[in-house]
Amino acid sequence: MQKKKVRIGMIGYKFMGKAHSHAYRDVPFYFDSSVEPVLQAICGRDEEGVKEAAHKMGWNSYETDWRKLIERDDIDLIDIVTPNNSHAEIAIAAAKAGKHVFCEKPLAMTLEEAQEMLKAVEENGVMHVINHNYRFSPAIQWAKKLIDEGRLGKIYHVRATYLQDWIMDPKFPLVWRLSKEVCGSGSHGDLAAHSIDLARFLVGEFKEVSGILETFIKERPIVESSSGLSGNASSDSDTYGKVDVDDASVFLARFQNGAIGTFEATRFAGGNRNGNRIEINGEKGSIRWDMEKMNELDVYFHEDEPGLQGFRTINCTEEVHPFAGAYWPAGHIIGYEHTFINLIVDMLDSLGKGENPEPNFVDGVRNQAVLAAVEQSSETKTWISVEGLLNKSKISI
Amino acid sequence: MQKKKVRIGMIGYKFMGKAHSHAYRDVPFYFDSSVEPVLQAICGRDEEGVKEAAHKMGWNSYETDWRKLIERDDIDLIDIVTPNNSHAEIAIAAAKAGKHVFCEKPLAMTLEEAQEMLKAVEENGVMHVINHNYRFSPAIQWAKKLIDEGRLGKIYHVRATYLQDWIMDPKFPLVWRLSKEVCGSGSHGDLAAHSIDLARFLVGEFKEVSGILETFIKERPIVESSSGLSGNASSDSDTYGKVDVDDASVFLARFQNGAIGTFEATRFAGGNRNGNRIEINGEKGSIRWDMEKMNELDVYFHEDEPGLQGFRTINCTEEVHPFAGAYWPAGHIIGYEHTFINLIVDMLDSLGKGENPEPNFVDGVRNQAVLAAVEQSSETKTWISVEGLLNKSKISI
Amino acid sequence: MQKKKVRIGMIGYKFMGKAHSHAYRDVPFYFDSSVEPVLQAICGRDEEGVKEAAHKMGWNSYETDWRKLIERDDIDLIDIVTPNNSHAEIAIAAAKAGKHVFCEKPLAMTLEEAQEMLKAVEENGVMHVINHNYRFSPAIQWAKKLIDEGRLGKIYHVRATYLQDWIMDPKFPLVWRLSKEVCGSGSHGDLAAHSIDLARFLVGEFKEVSGILETFIKERPIVESSSGLSGNASSDSDTYGKVDVDDASVFLARFQNGAIGTFEATRFAGGNRNGNRIEINGEKGSIRWDMEKMNELDVYFHEDEPGLQGFRTINCTEEVHPFAGAYWPAGHIIGYEHTFINLIVDMLDSLGKGENPEPNFVDGVRNQAVLAAVEQSSETKTWISVEGLLNKSKISI
Amino acid sequence: MQKKKVRIGMIGYKFMGKAHSHAYRDVPFYFDSSVEPVLQAICGRDEEGVKEAAHKMGWNSYETDWRKLIERDDIDLIDIVTPNNSHAEIAIAAAKAGKHVFCEKPLAMTLEEAQEMLKAVEENGVMHVINHNYRFSPAIQWAKKLIDEGRLGKIYHVRATYLQDWIMDPKFPLVWRLSKEVCGSGSHGDLAAHSIDLARFLVGEFKEVSGILETFIKERPIVESSSGLSGNASSDSDTYGKVDVDDASVFLARFQNGAIGTFEATRFAGGNRNGNRIEINGEKGSIRWDMEKMNELDVYFHEDEPGLQGFRTINCTEEVHPFAGAYWPAGHIIGYEHTFINLIVDMLDSLGKGENPEPNFVDGVRNQAVLAAVEQSSETKTWISVEGLLNKSKISI
Repeated sequence: MQKKKVRIGMIGYKFMGKAHSHAYRDVPFYFDSSVEPVLQAICGRDEEGVKEAAHKMGWNSYETDWRKLIERDDIDLIDIVTPNNSHAEIAIAAAKAGKHVFCEKPLAMTLEEAQEMLKAVEENGVMHVINHNYRFSPAIQWAKKLIDEGRLGKIYHVRATYLQDWIMDPKFPLVWRLSKEVCGSGSHGDLAAHSIDLARFLVGEFKEVSGILETFIKERPIVESSSGLSGNASSDSDTYGKVDVDDASVFLARFQNGAIGTFEATRFAGGNRNGNRIEINGEKGSIRWDMEKMNELDVYFHEDEPGLQGFRTINCTEEVHPFAGAYWPAGHIIGYEHTFINLIVDMLDSLGKGENPEPNFVDGVRNQAVLAAVEQSSETKTWISVEGLLNKSKISI
Repeated sequence: MQKKKVRIGMIGYKFMGKAHSHAYRDVPFYFDSSVEPVLQAICGRDEEGVKEAAHKMGWNSYETDWRKLIERDDIDLIDIVTPNNSHAEIAIAAAKAGKHVFCEKPLAMTLEEAQEMLKAVEENGVMHVINHNYRFSPAIQWAKKLIDEGRLGKIYHVRATYLQDWIMDPKFPLVWRLSKEVCGSGSHGDLAAHSIDLARFLVGEFKEVSGILETFIKERPIVESSSGLSGNASSDSDTYGKVDVDDASVFLARFQNGAIGTFEATRFAGGNRNGNRIEINGEKGSIRWDMEKMNELDVYFHEDEPGLQGFRTINCTEEVHPFAGAYWPAGHIIGYEHTFINLIVDMLDSLGKGENPEPNFVDGVRNQAVLAAVEQSSETKTWISVEGLLNKSKISI
Repeated sequence: MQKKKVRIGMIGYKFMGKAHSHAYRDVPFYFDSSVEPVLQAICGRDEEGVKEAAHKMGWNSYETDWRKLIERDDIDLIDIVTPNNSHAEIAIAAAKAGKHVFCEKPLAMTLEEAQEMLKAVEENGVMHVINHNYRFSPAIQWAKKLIDEGRLGKIYHVRATYLQDWIMDPKFPLVWRLSKEVCGSGSHGDLAAHSIDLARFLVGEFKEVSGILETFIKERPIVESSSGLSGNASSDSDTYGKVDVDDASVFLARFQNGAIGTFEATRFAGGNRNGNRIEINGEKGSIRWDMEKMNELDVYFHEDEPGLQGFRTINCTEEVHPFAGAYWPAGHIIGYEHTFINLIVDMLDSLGKGENPEPNFVDGVRNQAVLAAVEQSSETKTWISVEGLLNKSKISI
Repeated sequence: MQKKKVRIGMIGYKFMGKAHSHAYRDVPFYFDSSVEPVLQAICGRDEEGVKEAAHKMGWNSYETDWRKLIERDDIDLIDIVTPNNSHAEIAIAAAKAGKHVFCEKPLAMTLEEAQEMLKAVEENGVMHVINHNYRFSPAIQWAKKLIDEGRLGKIYHVRATYLQDWIMDPKFPLVWRLSKEVCGSGSHGDLAAHSIDLARFLVGEFKEVSGILETFIKERPIVESSSGLSGNASSDSDTYGKVDVDDASVFLARFQNGAIGTFEATRFAGGNRNGNRIEINGEKGSIRWDMEKMNELDVYFHEDEPGLQGFRTINCTEEVHPFAGAYWPAGHIIGYEHTFINLIVDMLDSLGKGENPEPNFVDGVRNQAVLAAVEQSSETKTWISVEGLLNKSKISI
C-alpha cells in the first residue's frame, strides 16, 4: 500500500530544527504511521548555513526566504522552529496559504498574538500543533493514563520545577535568548511553558496564579555572535547591555478542579542541567517524574498493602507503555529525542485520520494565558485569573 | 570536676515529651557538656498517665498542675511540649518565675502572643530556646557552615517542601491537631514552621510572602478520644465536625538578601511520610537535603572541574561533621531523635557559658511573623511584608 | 508489677561497648519488656579508662579483671565486647560460672573455638546470643517476614556487599584490627560475617563456597597506640610491620536450597563508608537493602500489574514494621544504634520467656563455618563444603 | 568534499539488525565522519521478512543467501547480526572475500572458533570489529579517560552485574536464545560477555577465574515459532524440552594488575529489566555506572576535601564528555541506541584513517577466553587461568 505523504517545510534549523529533522527521519523507521513525512525543504536566512544544514540533516531543498517557502506548492506543512518573535507572522501566513502548521513553544510573544494565530488556523481549516514534546515521553503518557483512569483520584497537589544553570556565569553573554524583543521572556516562556503544559495535560486547566519574574544578573556582556546554547561560555567583552527578560519565574496556582500548584522555572539552579520535574498527589496515589531520568515514573498507590506502601520506580520501556514498544526491549532506555519522534508520529496519525491532534494552538493559547497571567501578577503583585484574561478575547476556546 | 546541673521541669509528655525526655537522657552519654540535665519533674493533667510516663521515661517526679511545677524551687528550666494554645501562658508564667524556658514550635498561636512571650523572657532575663530541631541534623549544620563560608556564594533560590500524608483518609477523625482553637493552624504551624526555620537559618530573613492556606477535607468524624498521630486511623463515627485549620500551605517568598523561595507544607502528599526537604542554589554552588535521608547532604560546586561537576552525596557521619563525632564511625547513620540531642546539648553548653543559644524566642517571633504574613496573604490575596508585621509591634528584635 | 531484672556484666568498653551500653539504657525507655537490664558492672584492664567509661555510660560499678567479674554473684549475664581472640576463653568461663552469655561477632577465632563455646553454653544450660545486630533493622525483619510468607517464592540469587574504605591510606597504621593474632582475620570476620548472617537469616544455610582473601597493602607503619577506628588517620612512623589479615574477602556460594550468591567484603572500596548491602531475587519478587539507608526496603513483586511493576521504596518506620512502632511516627527515621536496642529487647524478651533467642551460638558456629570454608578455599583454590567442615566436629547442630 | 563511502551488507535483521540499521542512518546526521555508511543490502532467509525490513529500515537491496551477499562487488563491509552459531562461518568467508567484518558479540561459540575468526581477518588484512556497544556510552568513555589518566590510581575492585528477568516465568518457551546449539550459552555469552568487556576496557586483562553456570528452570515448553525477546510471554504448550544453557553465570576474577572482581549475569533477577552495572574502586577514587541510568556516572575522589567527600552524580551529556557534544545540550539525555551510533562512528573514523578500531576480534578472542575459562571452572570446580587457555592456541594476540 502506498502511504500518504506529507511534505514538510521547516523554517529555522538550529537546536529545535535539528530535533525536528531527526524525528521526521526516525518516524518511519520506528512506527507504521499511515502518513509519511517528506523532508521537502528547510529555510534560513544564511544561505551557506541552511544549505549545509539541508545536506547534513537530509532535506531535499532549501530556501532563504520563508515567504517563498510558504508559497511553494510542494509543501503541505510548515514547521516553525524560529525564535518566538516570528512565530505569529509565519504561522498566520502559513495558515492563509492553506498549510498545516506545527509550531515550537511558546506559541507567541503575547496572549493576543497567540489568539490571532489560533483564529488564523481555525478560519483556514488547517491542522495546528504546538511542540510540547515532554508530554510525549512514555512515562508522562503512562501517568496521564493512570490519572484519566482515576488511579490517583481527585488531584490535590502539583509541584513542578524546571531547573537549569547554563547562564549563571555573570560573564555569559547577552545572547538572543536573553532578549525580550526576540523571546518575549526568559526562563518563563522557555521553561515554565513546559511545566504549564505538563500540568494542563495531567491535572487540568488553571484558574488563577500569583507569581514573580526575577532577573538576578541585570547586565551582561554584548558580543557579536552569540549562539546561546553552550552552558560554559564566558565573554571578556567590556561592553554591557541590559538583560530585559527573567532569569527565573516562580508562581502559585489554583486549578479549576481545586488542585493547587507550585511552579518554578529558572536558569540559576546550579547543578541542574535540565531539571524538568513534576510531582502530583491525588487522593489515591501520587506520581513523580524527572526529565533527566525520563524513562522512570515513580508511582505510589495508597491502596497498596499496609507496610508495603512506597513509591515504585517503573522503567517505562515495556510494550505496555505508550510508544515504548516501537523502540527496544524493556530496560533499554530512550532519550530526549524520542519525545519528538512520539509527538510527530502522533501528529501524522491524526493527519491521516483527518483529526487535529493535541497539543494544538488551543493548548498554545491556554498556555500563553497562564504565562501572561503570571507576568501580570508579577507586575501587579496580585492574583490574576487565567480565565479572566482569556475571556477578554473574542475567540472562544 | 562536679558538673553544673540544670533541673528540668517538662510540661506535656506525649510525642514531643518522649523526644525531649530521650534526648535529656542521651546528652551525657554522648557528649561532655559542662551542664548536665536532671530529669526532675514532668507534668500532665491525667495523673495515671503522667505517673506512668514519669516512670517509663525516667523522671524523678511528676505534677498534674503546671502552675505548681513552675513554682517548685527545684526546677531551673521549664520545657513546654504542650499543644500550641498553652505555650504563651506557660512560658510567660515560667519567665516571671525566673525559670529558663525551652518551648516547642510554633512558639505561639499568633504573632502578638509570640511577642509577648519574647518580652517576658527578655524582661525576666531567663534563657529562651525554641525547638527547631531539624536545624541540628549534622547535614544541615554542615550546609550552614558551607553557606557561612561563602561556598555557595550569593543565594538565588530556596525551595522547601514538607510533605506528609497521615490525614488523607476523609474518615481520619477530627483530632486536636486539626483544631484551630488548640493549634492555631494545621500544616502551616506544624510543618511550614520547620521549613521557615531552615530557610531563615540557611538563607536569612524573609522580606515578603504571597500564599495560600487550603483545606481539602472540610468535615471529619468527631470521636471521643483522638490521639492524632497514627496515620492509618479511620473512624466510623457518623457525627461530623468542621475542620477549621489548613491541610496545606503553599507560598512564595522574597528574602532580604534577594533570594526567592517556594514553600509547600501539606498533609496530603500521598507516599510522603515525613518529606521535609530543602534545596538551595547559590552563585557558586547548591545543596539539597531530605529529612527521610537526613544523614546525607547533596552538595554541588560550580568550581569543580568541567566534566566532573555533579551533586556529591555526602554521608555527614564523619568526625568533621558537626555533632557527628559524638556518635558512631562514619557511615553508621543516626536518626530523628539525634536532632533533639544535638539541639539540647547546644542549649546546655550555652547555659554553661551564660549565653542564650539559637534558635530562641527571637527566632520564634520571626518565624511567627512569616506564618502570620502567609495567613494574611491567603486572606487578602496580596503580598504581605514580614518586616511590616514585625514593625507594628513595639518590641524591637 | 515488679519487673524481672537481669544484671549485666560487660567486658570491654570501646566502640561495641558504647553501642551495647546505650542500647541497655534505651530498652526500657522504648519497650515494655518483661525483663529489665541493670547496668551492673563493666570491665577493662585500664582502671582510669574503665572508671571513666562506667561513669559516662551509667554503669553501677567496674572491674579490671574479667575473671573477677565472672565470679561476682550480682551478675546474671556476661556481655563480651572484647577483641575476637578473647571471646572463647571468656565465654567458656562465663558459661561454667552459670552466666548467660551475649557475645560480639565473629564468635571466635576459628571454627573449633566456636564449637567449644557452643558446647560450653549448652552443657551449662545458659542462654547464648551473638550480636548480629543488622538482622534487627526493621527493614531486614520485614524482609524476613515477606520471605517466610513466601512472597518472594523460591530464592534464586543473593548478592551481598559490605564495602568500607577506612584503611585505604597506605600510611594508616597497623592497628589491632589488622592483626591476625588479635582478630583472626580482617574484613572477612569483621564485615563478611555480617553478610553471611544476613544471608543465613534471609535465605538459609550455605552449602559450599569458593573465595579469595586478599591483602592489598602488605606492610603498614607501626605506632605505639592505635585505636583503629578513625578513617583518616595517617602515620609518619618509618617502622613498618607486616599486615597478616585480609583487606578484602570475596566469594561465591551455593545454598542448600539451590540459591547462589556472591559476597564481597572489603575495606578498600573508596567512597563507601559503611556499605552493608544485600539483594535477594526470588521467583515471585525481590528485595534490596542498604545499611546507609537502613530504614528503606526496596521490594519488587512480579505479580504487580503489567506496566506498574517496579521496586517500591518502603520507609520501614510504620507501626506495622517490626520494632518500628516503639520509636517515632512514620518517616521519622532511626539509625544504627537502634539495631542494638532491637536485638537486646528481643534477647530480654526471650530470657523472660525462658527461651533462647536467635541469633545464638549455633548461628555463631554456622557463621564461623562459612568463614572457615572461605579461608580454606582461598588457600586451596577449590570449593569447600560448609557442611563438611561442620561434620568434622563432634557437636551436632 | 566528496566523502568516502563504505557500503554495508548486513546479515540478519531482527533486534540487533534494527539497532545497527538505525545507527548507520544516524551517524551522518550527528557526526562529521570522513567515511559515510551506505545501507547497501541486508540478508535474511525469509524473503518476505527481509524485503519488508529492507524497506522499513532504508536498505537499498536485500539478499536471501548470505554467500551471495558476500560475493557482491558493491559491498565493502559485512555486518553480522545473526545468532552466535553462524558468526564464525560468515566472518571467515567474508574475510576471505576481502570484506571488512563487523560482528555481534559474543564473537563465537567457542574460543577455538573465535581464534579461527581472528586468524582469518588478520590473514586477509580486513578491518575487524566486535560490537561491545556499552563501551561507547559517554559515561563509560569518560570513566575510561579518568582511569587512563590515573585519577582512580591502582585498581583494587571491580564488581559487575548484568541483571535481567525476562525468562523467569517457567512457562516462558524454549526460544532460540535458550538453545546451546544456537547460542553456545545463555546469560553467560549474552550478558556476562558485556560485563567482561567493560572490565577489560576499564581495568585490564583477566588472569584467572572461578565460577558457576546455573540453570534454574531445567525444562520449558516447546513452541513452533519463538521470537524470544518479549519478556512476558507465557506458553500453554504441554510439550517440554530441556534447557541446555545457563540461566545465570557468576564468577570471581583476578586481573593481571592485581585487581579482583565479582561478576554476575542472570536472567532471574526480578525487577531488573536491563541492569548492566559496574563499580570500580581504586586507590584514589571510584566510579559506578548503571545502564538503566546510562547518562550518569558516579565518581568519587579520595582527594576531595574532608567532609565533602562523596560520590558525585555526573550527567555525562556535556560537550566535554566523549560523543555527547554531537547530540543535545547538557541534561537532554540520550539512550541505548546512541551506544551503537558512537561505536559505528568510531569504526568509520578508523576506517577512514586506515586503522583498525577497538573493540576488535582480538578483544573478541580475549573475551571468549574469559567466557571459556568460566565454563571450564564451572565444570571442574577449580580456578582456570585465562592466559593458559589463550596460550594453548598458536595465534598470538
